[in-house]
Amino acid sequence: MDAYEALYTTRAMRRLKQDPIPTSVQKKILDAAIRAPSGGNTQNWRFMLVDDPAVKAKLGPVYRGCMDVVWGTFYKARRDAADAAPKDPESIEFMKMYRSADHLAQHFEDVPLLLFAFCQFDTSGGSIFPAVWNAMLAARIEGVGSSLTSAFFMKVDEVKKILGVPEEGGWNFSCCVTFGYPTGKWGVAPRRPAHEVAFHNGWDKPLGFEIPAPLWKKG
Amino acid sequence: MDAYEALYTTRAMRRLKQDPIPTSVQKKILDAAIRAPSGGNTQNWRFMLVDDPAVKAKLGPVYRGCMDVVWGTFYKARRDAADAAPKDPESIEFMKMYRSADHLAQHFEDVPLLLFAFCQFDTSGGSIFPAVWNAMLAARIEGVGSSLTSAFFMKVDEVKKILGVPEEGGWNFSCCVTFGYPTGKWGVAPRRPAHEVAFHNGWDKPLGFEIPAPLWKKG
Repeated sequence: MDAYEALYTTRAMRRLKQDPIPTSVQKKILDAAIRAPSGGNTQNWRFMLVDDPAVKAKLGPVYRGCMDVVWGTFYKARRDAADAAPKDPESIEFMKMYRSADHLAQHFEDVPLLLFAFCQFDTSGGSIFPAVWNAMLAARIEGVGSSLTSAFFMKVDEVKKILGVPEEGGWNFSCCVTFGYPTGKWGVAPRRPAHEVAFHNGWDKPLGFEIPAPLWKKG
Repeated sequence: MDAYEALYTTRAMRRLKQDPIPTSVQKKILDAAIRAPSGGNTQNWRFMLVDDPAVKAKLGPVYRGCMDVVWGTFYKARRDAADAAPKDPESIEFMKMYRSADHLAQHFEDVPLLLFAFCQFDTSGGSIFPAVWNAMLAARIEGVGSSLTSAFFMKVDEVKKILGVPEEGGWNFSCCVTFGYPTGKWGVAPRRPAHEVAFHNGWDKPLGFEIPAPLWKKG
């Protein structure tokens, strides 16, 4: 696969087939993850793959509880706005994301493969999310969809207990990634163009150029 | 470029030529960055490109001051260990990283292009580092070396003042990325293999497979 195709089409895929992820693909996902940089190359990361139905059965209800908190707090204003003006483009986009994320939550136990990422001491995320994103890009190359969720933070102590994460050692939960072959199609996700979110040599100073449309397209 | 080549060979490149980064390449870097996911697709990110010598002249001394703190605290034990046993493989690896990072600090004003990333409210890093890493991968595809540094955290208020980041708005500094055409060669960085840092269905439970050597090689 062309490198730009991976960068442009790795979008959240939350509607999944139940086919398992072959070990050969799991290897590619993990081996790509560890190629990422970490502060001082300390590689203070741990990755946990979860596919045991008994473990997923414990995680599912916790995940739905976390998502209830997420929808009721962080996204409450956007949900209310979408309810109030359902035909606004922003509302439509939000509800698409909401339904997809809710589908994932309702079927959490059916996700073929979960990856939990942990990072020791790091607090910025700079030493773990490049690795996590590499894992998701490698999955994309192999035709496997993924979705990054931080929702478990809402009940992180329960999650660490289920997964057996020791209290000592300074291991922080960073995120969970869901993996599965997608039922939908790959594509470039809609985004606010770069020139609207980027500055040049000072805050609010214009970039000096525009990028009105994605620079990569399926050829 | 093959997608795996990008994932495997994007390693920190801190010895740089002074050639400027063409606008066409800057566009590719930023446009790839914004393709990354963010929590709820909120895209609460801002990116600032810096290439003005006057701004870099202010940042250079601050960066070196930050690195002094970093070496004297986080990495002090490893530096002392390297001094005590300079022929240990670990010491050799550390000193390579140290000299390269110190070279960058001493020549900070000569870095052709800097990217500062900011994220609103997010504290985990999960909504900004996939974008930052996409920027670094796109640079790699274009033959541009990069290096991610969080050192500016040590004097973040000074940095935000130099860059004009407003105090209101909840914009947190996430990291700085240095960009430039490298003097050295691209390659796969040494890493601890995945099976030593990954578990299966529970903490410390063996992965069940091994990945003794990188799964991708320059063909």
